[in-house]
Amino acid sequence: MSTRAPFAWRSRIRFVDTDASGRIHYTALFRHLEAAEDEFMRSLEFPYSEREPATLSYPRVHVEANYLAALTYDDPIYITVAVSKLGASSYTLEFNVYLEETSEVAASGIVTVVCMSTRTQKAHPLPDDLRDALSPHRV
Amino acid sequence: MSTRAPFAWRSRIRFVDTDASGRIHYTALFRHLEAAEDEFMRSLEFPYSEREPATLSYPRVHVEANYLAALTYDDPIYITVAVSKLGASSYTLEFNVYLEETSEVAASGIVTVVCMSTRTQKAHPLPDDLRDALSPHRV
Amino acid sequence: MSTRAPFAWRSRIRFVDTDASGRIHYTALFRHLEAAEDEFMRSLEFPYSEREPATLSYPRVHVEANYLAALTYDDPIYITVAVSKLGASSYTLEFNVYLEETSEVAASGIVTVVCMSTRTQKAHPLPDDLRDALSPHRV
Amino acid sequence: MSTRAPFAWRSRIRFVDTDASGRIHYTALFRHLEAAEDEFMRSLEFPYSEREPATLSYPRVHVEANYLAALTYDDPIYITVAVSKLGASSYTLEFNVYLEETSEVAASGIVTVVCMSTRTQKAHPLPDDLRDALSPHRV
Repeated sequence: MSTRAPFAWRSRIRFVDTDASGRIHYTALFRHLEAAEDEFMRSLEFPYSEREPATLSYPRVHVEANYLAALTYDDPIYITVAVSKLGASSYTLEFNVYLEETSEVAASGIVTVVCMSTRTQKAHPLPDDLRDALSPHRV
Repeated sequence: MSTRAPFAWRSRIRFVDTDASGRIHYTALFRHLEAAEDEFMRSLEFPYSEREPATLSYPRVHVEANYLAALTYDDPIYITVAVSKLGASSYTLEFNVYLEETSEVAASGIVTVVCMSTRTQKAHPLPDDLRDALSPHRV
Repeated sequence: MSTRAPFAWRSRIRFVDTDASGRIHYTALFRHLEAAEDEFMRSLEFPYSEREPATLSYPRVHVEANYLAALTYDDPIYITVAVSKLGASSYTLEFNVYLEETSEVAASGIVTVVCMSTRTQKAHPLPDDLRDALSPHRV
Repeated sequence: MSTRAPFAWRSRIRFVDTDASGRIHYTALFRHLEAAEDEFMRSLEFPYSEREPATLSYPRVHVEANYLAALTYDDPIYITVAVSKLGASSYTLEFNVYLEETSEVAASGIVTVVCMSTRTQKAHPLPDDLRDALSPHRV
């Protein structure tokens, strides 16, 4: 388990994220989680946009989210990202979404990413350097 | 448990649903699940848009999805909806997304909806008529 | 100019389409226009998903929309599609969005699509059969 | 006309923004324009989330976008915002979207916002302080 502070990324609820309930629409949360994941991977020097070799892809196979408190238009938030599971050919990231003003957890999420061979369309072992980069962020 | 055929709703993967991987983006699936849920509730004569009284609202508190096979642009799909859990003040719907051409399950999903009092912002027992309408669709 | 009835496609405003104003978010309209365009092209037997040759692509280069009346959650709508301009290497589609209950025009839109060579990344003359299919729908 | 540097806001193309063409989907651009507009209005000390009085709302009545060069996954961009028209009860913002690495204009957009009375649902003169804030940003 890591003792370092978790990776955190700041964002803000946009009008397009809301729905007629006046709160965030549940699907919109995932756009923020994706941006947080992108920035987390970039912080590890493994941005998805530069991953090699091109014969591997990283589709999501499972996602979850919990909505714990209202997120409304223009709320500043920050999202922490950690590695909750590191498998042979997959990894699971966990996210917590905090309201910046109160530090209250407003939502949480889980995304499981599989390393897949684009040739066989089957799971492929995670590259060692990617595993090494993710490993210190396990919780 | 119901012996009736499950509710099914047909849709199609749109270009906006895809991403640069050439497949559906994981968030886009939820738009299709929402439409299927809307039509399922309408089939029960409880469309969300006409729910009374206005002092109750129905936010999502938990969602999940699994991505089992590629969904690509213009694929015709159908989505079945059933009730997997019927609690005192919540219900959980489960969804299966099938490729129409092969009847293969390409994705599945779960959405948990809570009946909330807009006055207290707390969970409120499901109205009896709504419970009665959902009950035959339990699996 | 065609004397036939315009192509029309039915849809419905979903909850994800709304925002905290209680109305449709302006970006959500475009998802419905895209679906209408897809179905219009399919009706011409030129679905984008089956276009040949693969050396041509059809990116959008200009879009517009006007919002004339409120579109709210669960409103049934229909969208008409016509060809407002047919150029050497591009075509412009115009859309009108009607509330089904009143036949009121609630929104309109324009999308200009260019035929592009994927090899040169430059405009390429529209294939003759595509031009012939679009031509009767000019307004 | 202002001689000050235009307001600019930095963003990045996310995977959800792309489609199967490998480029940004045309609707996704508008999410970035909306975020740029939000931050522009905040820089004027008129964030939409704090506008008073509550009897006025600010719906979009017209939007446009032009797509000039490819925007692809993970491209860093910046978006400039200026006021291209300041009417009695409306204002039009214009946006230019630049690729950060080359300073090339990749897209542009226009959004017309109307000040509307929520009581009459008709256009209402822009509040003077809002007009004064927008005025120096006219181009």
